[in-house]
Amino acid sequence: MCEHFLQEPEWSWNHPEKDEPTYVHHWVKPLHKIEQTPDLILYGAPISRSSISVSGASLYPSEFRRMWKGFTTYNLDENVDLSSFLVADAGDVAMHTTDIILSHQRIQKTTAYLAAHYPTTRTCMIGGDHSTTACAVRGIKEAFGEEKIGILQLDTHLDVRDPKELGPANGTPIRQLIDGKIVKGEDVINIGLHGYYNAKPLIDYATQHSIQMVTLKQARKQGLLNTIQGALEQLTKKVDRIYITVDMDVLDISVAPGVPASTPGGMSAMELFDCLLEIGKHPSVQHIDFVCLDPSKDSAVSETVKIGVYAWLQFITGCMFQPR
Amino acid sequence: MCEHFLQEPEWSWNHPEKDEPTYVHHWVKPLHKIEQTPDLILYGAPISRSSISVSGASLYPSEFRRMWKGFTTYNLDENVDLSSFLVADAGDVAMHTTDIILSHQRIQKTTAYLAAHYPTTRTCMIGGDHSTTACAVRGIKEAFGEEKIGILQLDTHLDVRDPKELGPANGTPIRQLIDGKIVKGEDVINIGLHGYYNAKPLIDYATQHSIQMVTLKQARKQGLLNTIQGALEQLTKKVDRIYITVDMDVLDISVAPGVPASTPGGMSAMELFDCLLEIGKHPSVQHIDFVCLDPSKDSAVSETVKIGVYAWLQFITGCMFQPR
Amino acid sequence: MCEHFLQEPEWSWNHPEKDEPTYVHHWVKPLHKIEQTPDLILYGAPISRSSISVSGASLYPSEFRRMWKGFTTYNLDENVDLSSFLVADAGDVAMHTTDIILSHQRIQKTTAYLAAHYPTTRTCMIGGDHSTTACAVRGIKEAFGEEKIGILQLDTHLDVRDPKELGPANGTPIRQLIDGKIVKGEDVINIGLHGYYNAKPLIDYATQHSIQMVTLKQARKQGLLNTIQGALEQLTKKVDRIYITVDMDVLDISVAPGVPASTPGGMSAMELFDCLLEIGKHPSVQHIDFVCLDPSKDSAVSETVKIGVYAWLQFITGCMFQPR
Amino acid sequence: MCEHFLQEPEWSWNHPEKDEPTYVHHWVKPLHKIEQTPDLILYGAPISRSSISVSGASLYPSEFRRMWKGFTTYNLDENVDLSSFLVADAGDVAMHTTDIILSHQRIQKTTAYLAAHYPTTRTCMIGGDHSTTACAVRGIKEAFGEEKIGILQLDTHLDVRDPKELGPANGTPIRQLIDGKIVKGEDVINIGLHGYYNAKPLIDYATQHSIQMVTLKQARKQGLLNTIQGALEQLTKKVDRIYITVDMDVLDISVAPGVPASTPGGMSAMELFDCLLEIGKHPSVQHIDFVCLDPSKDSAVSETVKIGVYAWLQFITGCMFQPR
Amino acid sequence: MCEHFLQEPEWSWNHPEKDEPTYVHHWVKPLHKIEQTPDLILYGAPISRSSISVSGASLYPSEFRRMWKGFTTYNLDENVDLSSFLVADAGDVAMHTTDIILSHQRIQKTTAYLAAHYPTTRTCMIGGDHSTTACAVRGIKEAFGEEKIGILQLDTHLDVRDPKELGPANGTPIRQLIDGKIVKGEDVINIGLHGYYNAKPLIDYATQHSIQMVTLKQARKQGLLNTIQGALEQLTKKVDRIYITVDMDVLDISVAPGVPASTPGGMSAMELFDCLLEIGKHPSVQHIDFVCLDPSKDSAVSETVKIGVYAWLQFITGCMFQPR
Amino acid sequence: MCEHFLQEPEWSWNHPEKDEPTYVHHWVKPLHKIEQTPDLILYGAPISRSSISVSGASLYPSEFRRMWKGFTTYNLDENVDLSSFLVADAGDVAMHTTDIILSHQRIQKTTAYLAAHYPTTRTCMIGGDHSTTACAVRGIKEAFGEEKIGILQLDTHLDVRDPKELGPANGTPIRQLIDGKIVKGEDVINIGLHGYYNAKPLIDYATQHSIQMVTLKQARKQGLLNTIQGALEQLTKKVDRIYITVDMDVLDISVAPGVPASTPGGMSAMELFDCLLEIGKHPSVQHIDFVCLDPSKDSAVSETVKIGVYAWLQFITGCMFQPR
Repeated sequence: MCEHFLQEPEWSWNHPEKDEPTYVHHWVKPLHKIEQTPDLILYGAPISRSSISVSGASLYPSEFRRMWKGFTTYNLDENVDLSSFLVADAGDVAMHTTDIILSHQRIQKTTAYLAAHYPTTRTCMIGGDHSTTACAVRGIKEAFGEEKIGILQLDTHLDVRDPKELGPANGTPIRQLIDGKIVKGEDVINIGLHGYYNAKPLIDYATQHSIQMVTLKQARKQGLLNTIQGALEQLTKKVDRIYITVDMDVLDISVAPGVPASTPGGMSAMELFDCLLEIGKHPSVQHIDFVCLDPSKDSAVSETVKIGVYAWLQFITGCMFQPR
Repeated sequence: MCEHFLQEPEWSWNHPEKDEPTYVHHWVKPLHKIEQTPDLILYGAPISRSSISVSGASLYPSEFRRMWKGFTTYNLDENVDLSSFLVADAGDVAMHTTDIILSHQRIQKTTAYLAAHYPTTRTCMIGGDHSTTACAVRGIKEAFGEEKIGILQLDTHLDVRDPKELGPANGTPIRQLIDGKIVKGEDVINIGLHGYYNAKPLIDYATQHSIQMVTLKQARKQGLLNTIQGALEQLTKKVDRIYITVDMDVLDISVAPGVPASTPGGMSAMELFDCLLEIGKHPSVQHIDFVCLDPSKDSAVSETVKIGVYAWLQFITGCMFQPR
Repeated sequence: MCEHFLQEPEWSWNHPEKDEPTYVHHWVKPLHKIEQTPDLILYGAPISRSSISVSGASLYPSEFRRMWKGFTTYNLDENVDLSSFLVADAGDVAMHTTDIILSHQRIQKTTAYLAAHYPTTRTCMIGGDHSTTACAVRGIKEAFGEEKIGILQLDTHLDVRDPKELGPANGTPIRQLIDGKIVKGEDVINIGLHGYYNAKPLIDYATQHSIQMVTLKQARKQGLLNTIQGALEQLTKKVDRIYITVDMDVLDISVAPGVPASTPGGMSAMELFDCLLEIGKHPSVQHIDFVCLDPSKDSAVSETVKIGVYAWLQFITGCMFQPR
Repeated sequence: MCEHFLQEPEWSWNHPEKDEPTYVHHWVKPLHKIEQTPDLILYGAPISRSSISVSGASLYPSEFRRMWKGFTTYNLDENVDLSSFLVADAGDVAMHTTDIILSHQRIQKTTAYLAAHYPTTRTCMIGGDHSTTACAVRGIKEAFGEEKIGILQLDTHLDVRDPKELGPANGTPIRQLIDGKIVKGEDVINIGLHGYYNAKPLIDYATQHSIQMVTLKQARKQGLLNTIQGALEQLTKKVDRIYITVDMDVLDISVAPGVPASTPGGMSAMELFDCLLEIGKHPSVQHIDFVCLDPSKDSAVSETVKIGVYAWLQFITGCMFQPR
Repeated sequence: MCEHFLQEPEWSWNHPEKDEPTYVHHWVKPLHKIEQTPDLILYGAPISRSSISVSGASLYPSEFRRMWKGFTTYNLDENVDLSSFLVADAGDVAMHTTDIILSHQRIQKTTAYLAAHYPTTRTCMIGGDHSTTACAVRGIKEAFGEEKIGILQLDTHLDVRDPKELGPANGTPIRQLIDGKIVKGEDVINIGLHGYYNAKPLIDYATQHSIQMVTLKQARKQGLLNTIQGALEQLTKKVDRIYITVDMDVLDISVAPGVPASTPGGMSAMELFDCLLEIGKHPSVQHIDFVCLDPSKDSAVSETVKIGVYAWLQFITGCMFQPR
Repeated sequence: MCEHFLQEPEWSWNHPEKDEPTYVHHWVKPLHKIEQTPDLILYGAPISRSSISVSGASLYPSEFRRMWKGFTTYNLDENVDLSSFLVADAGDVAMHTTDIILSHQRIQKTTAYLAAHYPTTRTCMIGGDHSTTACAVRGIKEAFGEEKIGILQLDTHLDVRDPKELGPANGTPIRQLIDGKIVKGEDVINIGLHGYYNAKPLIDYATQHSIQMVTLKQARKQGLLNTIQGALEQLTKKVDRIYITVDMDVLDISVAPGVPASTPGGMSAMELFDCLLEIGKHPSVQHIDFVCLDPSKDSAVSETVKIGVYAWLQFITGCMFQPR
């Protein structure tokens, strides 16, 4: 449980301590340079060769850090300054070039290490493709063996394809966790499903395992935020620890050119931002990931990566509203 | 009335009969391989040299079929499995390289042939530019000479430019049909007009011929679905057969890079999807086309073609709700 | 006050006087070719080397005029024909290749000249980057020295960075005007602010100088049009003359690829169009500019420039509703 | 023979007569504004709906004129100032929107008109697709009925597909002329053929009709300029008048993204420039065209159009070397 | 040795037997549809998750087959008709989604199968990344265990990185084969090396193992074709069987946008074509592959894939020159 | 003479001292971290708002450093390891946001500072646009007042436009230096001129001031390397110190999409590489710059920036051949 495979982040944080940080890259600090317990630990899981179709999602962690320079720490809408919230960047998990299983184990071990050593700190993993979620959740299980984990998934897909057929690919994480007895199907709530993107047999699997499927249409009808709140309340009653996984393909294709699996009929960026703010506010949420964004396919103006950074800041803004 | 100019579809359908199809390309079948009466016949009209400005809409039928592989037959929002609805692909009408009039006649003849031989089957033409609609409607008139045809047009433009000036170009189909006494102006309802895209003289023509113009703004105010329902009810009372023409330029430019004539202020993809679902539900609707999508101008992620396939599946989902 | 630096517009207006214009390029006339007092004078300020980051906004005036050919003079939504509203194109202010201060002075002088010689005519400046707004407002002050000017700013940013540090760059115009005593902070209303794009010290400056900040979220909650109306009412009571500045980066990044500073969470094109219509209706509005659109970064279908032309036509449509 | 269908060029030439022109757009003059006999008349034939595959070559004439602003009249390599050579721009032939035959006739009539009225002036047609060449050569035949015409064709393809099958499409012009007895096959020399781009039956046709085929490989072996010179000498002996047709697809795909039919293995830009200089020097050359360049597919830096303008200037430089 | 993992090619060959084929897609035949022994068997190895950096080279086999439609079977330069040379398409080796080792084994087994069953037929593998070459060569070793294999490699890189560090990644194939005693270093000749793209330790490895390194500069100095001939002669004397591997990154970056690892200073397309023609002529060459072309990164006009098809046809043209 | 305006380079050099560097980013060291006298000092001059047309050449220094990671220190063609040559990165000159004159002075002062403090070290400036060259040469003059400076310019343009008209823009540097008596016209040799890109009056200026103009065509005829050698010999005899300025627009447009001013008919990348190798070998060459590369316009594969890095390494390889 004590091993980790972290590589120091490549960027060099060089903001003078005395100055108040006003930009994100002056605010986030490398984990190995701070002594207090951080409020949130960020780490990258740069793997996407486990993706069914060609993906450059492995490039997201570094691009995420490159684009955050365009953001300040001040949320004007909520009138909140994030600079007092301590975010530590633990760098990226070192991936093997061709051994996918080994890479996956390292993500698991590293997540377990971070969760165990910083038990009161939120973790935030930046993928990587969606296969990384199975690793991270197993890592958390490893760290807190007795605790029951629930998952709130924002996703266009169920991701319950069969690992016996595909191996631990990006279409399989939820099934890996259910079949592996890490998480119960009834403790998984998927919000964002829509359209013609999940084959009937996958829906049958989800139904058999009591995965809660909330289509985007249903969620909009009952209020997206109500739906999120309801899901978090419900999970809070049933589990000890909530893991949020945000597959960026939940976004509509018109705002997410950098997510090859995004589709027409998905969430707008504003909807995603509102969801993340709400999720951040909830005290049971300890773990979150953002996966499947391939910056090599993004638009010339990096629209999708900017949405990714914004969504992450919304989650942190939400956290600021909690009593500390 | 018995001639057709169909070329077998290029793709090779090879799904084993015994397996339940879960993806669109396993579900749609070539017309010449099936024996039952299909519920819907699909055919392409790959011409765009009749377009006023340069257009590659002739490439849409084959690209449409290529991109449908990304869709399953299960509509999660409506909880409907399309696989019991029999869709037959009749292939494309053979176009002449330079003789536009001849090509147009072949579209007309082929439509007449399909309508006459499969009188209880819905037809769905994939254009091609909007000039094809005039051909198709004339073909239907040829097949059902006594019947009165009404048109519901989703379009940013009126398409009533003068064929005496332009020939049978893509800006003229509605005027061709009105001037040619195939359809009465009062039996044409255009929903989706907006902005600064129809010159005053065209509006004057439409007014003189009693074309019903509903701006997108008006439609949104009274409810887009109400507007669609109202239009279909009205037409049902007045005509024997409703033809739907979807000019993809009705979509907003932000979601339709692949439609050169799309503009700011147009329909969102979700609005179009909702319209098509509603249209599919209506029993008087026998014919539909989707035109003016130029895949060679589409975004790298094929956003517009994906919207095109989705819209078509929505129409079919709607059809599933009808008593059979 | 009598000097100007206008270069005749490059395009050659050649519509026969006798024909009713139906397209924008037949309707707008070069200023030097008309004798009546125009209703609106258009002029370009093609400078963007004053931009903090690399910008081709200097190319916007000519691209704006090139793309207006795709628009008719008939607004179908409002059922208004613009052709009776006299728009004169005064051409572009001649810019120096490297002397930014001189170029800025020319914009100021030219604006003063136009405002003084056509005191009852609305002016509309097409930027260039946002530094041009400071020049234009100073020019108007020069022309109407006694009058009090108020500013309604549609913008994602406050643009109150310090010119002592940056010189008269595009991040500084509002501060130039406040520090230069041309406009009072309390007479500036910014609508459209959102997200993480204004550093805390800038917000502090704005607060200290009583700039009225209305976030997009707040504006949406109270109704965007109500907010615009309220702002115009309030300014009308306090000032003699209202200047509207539209930084195109107020638009959401998904609809404004051609505005490098646009961000997720911004205004939709429809919202901007509605605002401009409302603004045009208000009799106190005499001056407007559109800035920061870089056509060299626009999408292949010129989405952003098309939105720019549409927004400008909406303003004119609004003007048509005023009693004349 | 006296009819023409020319539309005045859209650009407005406004260089003061007294100033020496230094840039191309100050040097070329609209035909209707000059009184002397020009040395060369330029005219556009903006049609590409006669193209087998989708083409925007109809946009080339206007783009050609837009990009020539980047060129001066001084050829530094040859130390020649072009400004004393009188180039007149006759504008574009007016094309019908859908009637290809009519459009083709207008090109023919207009070419006949120009050739007949300016018998000592070189003509230069800017296409359009390659179907325009058949029209232009027929027009010249019309003007100089007794004369024998020879063709030097720079092309990757033979363009002898069968008009009985395709109509007068862009793959057929040479065959149209041979089958129509306008030009003899033995008086056609094609230089630039290479690779796998001409099907066997077309080569058989060319052989049967004694078209002289020189592969690019052969030409390079014997010297490209020698080959050009030899071809011109040979034709000079056999015919009265030489027509040059430059299908821009003769260029290698790496330098001609704006020519959809360009292929690997083609000519370099430098080779093309050298050929054109040589061709210009030859006194028997009276007519030239440049066809098949689709600017809508060109690279972001307009590489192909720039090569097109350069090649045309090389031809004119060559002409300057002739005794006048 | 009898197992294979081939999936039938997706395209449907439907050229009537009686007609002479004139295009490549009418000429190549699916292996399972022919009875004679083919002259060359084509098979795809669509894997690139073994690539060090993100690669879509797995998409090349299908794109290769899609683009060959633009080529005829007639080589005009050499005056050779390929249609009598029997090319069979065996389809693609079925790849596992995440198990790289298993996928590699299948490539090896399938190559062994084809080599053993068609011992007199040339094999041509379409990759995939360069890791596939190690598999293919091992497969051939498996089939012809006693024979000594030599490799002629056209490549910018040595590809001798250490599999102990990277696993069987695309930078390692030559080292895998040397360390695995399949091929001797002295029997490997690399032509095409240049510039700053091979770290010193790799060059040291190559030197120690007597790999023959010929820089592109040296090859050009002594004549590229002489160099190729010399290399083939030399290998013929030393080995029983020559395997050619063409890493498409040997091409210069200016002609190979679709090869992410291509660099400035590489081979021109013409040089590559000449090499392949020469290689094809040599009777000892039994096996060839083309690897590392990522069509998802290719230019809009598919320049690199077209070069890939052309190069392959040159090889076949070469084969035609051998006595049969 | 002692002032400088350098900002430390942003990248963090973190290669362990003990390890032999094999990649460029492990080899180059920040100037402030080393104690020996470096062999070459690199510094950036990131300004392009002085450019006549819109340019992002200010982004080149940082992009240059980002892309050098793809290069090793081993030159395979010349069999030379660069790692013993000490390259120090001094970072970028701090530019003012809007004060071009001040920015230019800082470049001059900083160059003077570096030249004076490291008199035996070569300097290499990475622009920025070509206006920076005038600053750098003036700085060198400031440092070595008595010495006579000669310039070898690789450029498509003369860059002798009139600063009295344009200010110190990128078209003026050579004229600034001649008119300012810093360099004599006869001590300037321009190699690479070609085509139609220098207006007659500029050629007249060059002739009057005895600038030596060598067209690319002439240079190729007499051997490009001979021409370079001859030019360096000649200058060596006449001046004390040779400054090399490489305007990247000397490259042909087909290999330099990232240089907006590149043209058809320019140098190939290989030619440029050969020139730089030759230049580096010459002992009189003490100063060099590379200017006018705009990475924001580069191709998706960063072709032009890669050529820029390669060219710079060629210069250093050349230096290695000098006796040390």
